[in-house]
Amino acid sequence: MHVSRGAVCNSVTCGELRPKNVGERVVICGWVQYSRLSKFLLLRDAYGLTQCIVGSDDTDLSSLQLESVVQIEGMVSIRPRDTVNHEMATGEIEVTIIKLKVLNPSEKVAFNLRNYQKPKEQLRMQHRYIALRFPEMQNNLRTRSQMLHKMRRFLVENYGFIEVETPTLFCRTPGGAREFVVPTRHKGLFYSLVQSPQQFKQMLMSGGIDRYFQVARCYRDETTRPDRQPEFTQLDIELSFTTLEGVLTLIEEMLYDTFTKPLPRPPFNRITYKEALENYGSDKPNLLYDLKFINIKHLFDKKENDNFGALLLPYPSEMGKLTTKYKEKVKDIAKKYNAKVVLNENISKEYTSDLQERIQDAIGQNRAAIISISEDTENACLCLGEIKEMIISVLKSKELLKVNDNVAPLWVIDFPLFVKGDDGLQPCHHPFTAPHPDDLHLLETEPLKVRSLAYDLVMNGNEIGGGSVRIHSPHLQVKIMKMLNIDPEKLRHFVNALSSGCPPHAGIALGIDRLMAIACDAESIRDVIAFPKSHDGRDPLSGAPNVLSHSDRNYYHLNHIK
Amino acid sequence: MHVSRGAVCNSVTCGELRPKNVGERVVICGWVQYSRLSKFLLLRDAYGLTQCIVGSDDTDLSSLQLESVVQIEGMVSIRPRDTVNHEMATGEIEVTIIKLKVLNPSEKVAFNLRNYQKPKEQLRMQHRYIALRFPEMQNNLRTRSQMLHKMRRFLVENYGFIEVETPTLFCRTPGGAREFVVPTRHKGLFYSLVQSPQQFKQMLMSGGIDRYFQVARCYRDETTRPDRQPEFTQLDIELSFTTLEGVLTLIEEMLYDTFTKPLPRPPFNRITYKEALENYGSDKPNLLYDLKFINIKHLFDKKENDNFGALLLPYPSEMGKLTTKYKEKVKDIAKKYNAKVVLNENISKEYTSDLQERIQDAIGQNRAAIISISEDTENACLCLGEIKEMIISVLKSKELLKVNDNVAPLWVIDFPLFVKGDDGLQPCHHPFTAPHPDDLHLLETEPLKVRSLAYDLVMNGNEIGGGSVRIHSPHLQVKIMKMLNIDPEKLRHFVNALSSGCPPHAGIALGIDRLMAIACDAESIRDVIAFPKSHDGRDPLSGAPNVLSHSDRNYYHLNHIK
Repeated sequence: MHVSRGAVCNSVTCGELRPKNVGERVVICGWVQYSRLSKFLLLRDAYGLTQCIVGSDDTDLSSLQLESVVQIEGMVSIRPRDTVNHEMATGEIEVTIIKLKVLNPSEKVAFNLRNYQKPKEQLRMQHRYIALRFPEMQNNLRTRSQMLHKMRRFLVENYGFIEVETPTLFCRTPGGAREFVVPTRHKGLFYSLVQSPQQFKQMLMSGGIDRYFQVARCYRDETTRPDRQPEFTQLDIELSFTTLEGVLTLIEEMLYDTFTKPLPRPPFNRITYKEALENYGSDKPNLLYDLKFINIKHLFDKKENDNFGALLLPYPSEMGKLTTKYKEKVKDIAKKYNAKVVLNENISKEYTSDLQERIQDAIGQNRAAIISISEDTENACLCLGEIKEMIISVLKSKELLKVNDNVAPLWVIDFPLFVKGDDGLQPCHHPFTAPHPDDLHLLETEPLKVRSLAYDLVMNGNEIGGGSVRIHSPHLQVKIMKMLNIDPEKLRHFVNALSSGCPPHAGIALGIDRLMAIACDAESIRDVIAFPKSHDGRDPLSGAPNVLSHSDRNYYHLNHIK
Repeated sequence: MHVSRGAVCNSVTCGELRPKNVGERVVICGWVQYSRLSKFLLLRDAYGLTQCIVGSDDTDLSSLQLESVVQIEGMVSIRPRDTVNHEMATGEIEVTIIKLKVLNPSEKVAFNLRNYQKPKEQLRMQHRYIALRFPEMQNNLRTRSQMLHKMRRFLVENYGFIEVETPTLFCRTPGGAREFVVPTRHKGLFYSLVQSPQQFKQMLMSGGIDRYFQVARCYRDETTRPDRQPEFTQLDIELSFTTLEGVLTLIEEMLYDTFTKPLPRPPFNRITYKEALENYGSDKPNLLYDLKFINIKHLFDKKENDNFGALLLPYPSEMGKLTTKYKEKVKDIAKKYNAKVVLNENISKEYTSDLQERIQDAIGQNRAAIISISEDTENACLCLGEIKEMIISVLKSKELLKVNDNVAPLWVIDFPLFVKGDDGLQPCHHPFTAPHPDDLHLLETEPLKVRSLAYDLVMNGNEIGGGSVRIHSPHLQVKIMKMLNIDPEKLRHFVNALSSGCPPHAGIALGIDRLMAIACDAESIRDVIAFPKSHDGRDPLSGAPNVLSHSDRNYYHLNHIK
């Protein structure tokens, strides 16, 4: 981006001078990236690099620490042809220093900005104010800001959405993730930090805010997972008087319009949860890879058994045999899912030559395969899904993985409404998700067969969003809560909102950190967050969380709770 | 706003049908605002009202509760001329019902949407999902969204700012407001919820994000004040390589460009803290009222005493005498500031006729006055400032207050750097505020006389924003911290950020809740917040804060802290 500081600051940036500026007297500010021979100085800011050279003898660069912030007054001159740097946007000019003023000298910094000696992540997090100066962090944060701005413009200006800020200090949501708690002056009483604005946005629908969105801060105390943060951002959207199709179309158009990389023209592909499982062994398949299961159930004589499942995963035969380490892993996975797994080299031992031949036909030429069989189709699929991840990493390491070039967004629909938990039914998404109208008759008799009107948006194997048509009938909502062992009295305000005139509504939330990681080709979501925490929720910068003072503990009655 | 739902929903809104639509078959959804004679039905949504009439005999309105949500298919027809309603935007047409579908029947609601029987605030907060349907709440939330969107566009598109999200779970800030704490799995360790992104935005400056803003959620556990919320929103802005003038100009242009009401053309008026005190007895003077002190120190023989202060507040003599209740209040205020206060009727008793005459000259014709005198000018001013608030309410009640019509923004500058606290020096703004360069020589000898480069933006007597040029020198920062009894070790990361190459920078934060209350003519900030909490931090809707379960208390080690 080309930004002159003129309007609020009387200087040019380090990225903007060109041959057309030659002969101008300019003021330029920035960080000392590099200095050489007491003569050359490379000045850096967020917009680029500019080479400055000492003009008279009274400018002394020798005592200038790298990363000091300086202001230079100088003349723009053309570089001699043999010193033009074509890799720098300003590489055709240089600034001859008339006056150099050190605005803030740097002490010796924890690390310099050299990509070839990039410090470890821990050090970059500890000195985040330096790490943020790396061009990729500058680019990531700027891309994030610009893409969110475009999304806001799309929603507000194209569709009349309004952004509403909802509280983060709230009551506990029954079910769902572990929520942080916040003690109050009122003895023994705590707020919970919201895990999402779900209840609020549905109450806004009841309140007639028919097109709501919010770039919302959410909190989950689930820091044991590697790529999670205790606080994260979601683009939270809810609409009244709409349908599943309405939401999916809106999101497709928004992403097509605002994503930093080319996306396929909408509509995006859709598959059902069942298809995702049976073809990829995952509810968030990565379509970048050309690895898909083949159903071989019909080859077995158990084909009249509805539950029985038999699948094979074909892969390029050049991959060769798995190492012992991976074979052990396969055994563990098979055990976990109570499935039988047959490796490629064992197919001939396991099956009659007739069956062997038909299996080989299914696999195809120049391909090998792994077979997964179980009395429970879902287990056979999930088992092979986990094995697939392993195969992918082996293929990657041998450069045998065919990867499609583009970002491949995919809707997964028709999720089950419930899953089996340890203490009975659990919601597959959350307790407010509407059952599929075609399956309502199964709600009491076969609840696990009821599909929901939930949908997930998957990109390159990452779930980057999820939502659903919501329950708007208070009676159905109470019924579902009871099936989930949630006391409706604890959500009385929410049920009241449904029974006081609440329109049908649906919505979605997109995980902005993950979406931006894909948009910026970042390895971790921590690279698209200005001040991330480590995997165990600690802040290497400030040392948070910290010990609480005695007086604060007293104030919040934290010494007295029994 | 005119929004057709067409794009994501197959219906029109209740605000858009006009005579040009007559003859069209439409689908229209909304809330039943009113029904009459089993024949007429007034349908409402966020965009307006539309009258529908029963077309055939098989539409039964009798069982329809008010506030039910319905979908009507019907024909747009012109109203007979004598039934046109000029107060409704859709008052020239009506919709003849072909099909009425109840999308969600309402039970009896806590209150109906009648402005003439508006429920008390407590009830409106408890059933916020209904209260949000009132047209003024719809307007307030929509105005808030639109104005924030305009501000974002201004900053991003006109000036290349980037919005950066910073954490809210952080370490305790020494000094400042009481911060909420958040227990963690790590025994005895707590996060603090940030009271502002101050440290982060300054570290972003060190990190080369030279134009930062954020619509930031902030937290303060200070709920005893009437118009405060435990969480609130500020538009947080910080710039590198700028000056006080740069920030003030930017904010003036932004508000002039985005505020919902006409503002005076920039530059806005400025007064120093000293002038504000000596003319209005307040650091946030309300320029809407024509009430200003007159300095009469020169009339007294103590004029060679630098500290001595004597002021009078003139007011229209039609106001008459104060009642006993107010006189008692004046006594209390005088005592509080150790000042002598002379009421208008006592001037003749108190002073010689010569002095009387000169005082009367100062007061002017048809005016009365109250005099405040103290051995300490500041006390004389603050005393008269508090009395002024009282006089204003009396004048208001008697309709004698001259009020300027416009919103009057005002910068207050040249605040003192320190104020005297119980345990030594306290920061007047915060510990990161730069001293005025002209007063640096006084820092050690007379610190209370040192002015700062802080500024407040005041609108109609409300402080709606404040900021400062920041300290960028690590040495000066450590020195100021020590003067304030803050251990620099507790802010080691922050001092490191300054000493690792941090440009000069300045910034501001605008209180969005208060700004929107002014923009929307709302009586309270609670009227521009979707889900506000009550003055003691409770949520009448959900009942939060709540009792914590035993297992949660165990998880966060809240039973074990000694």
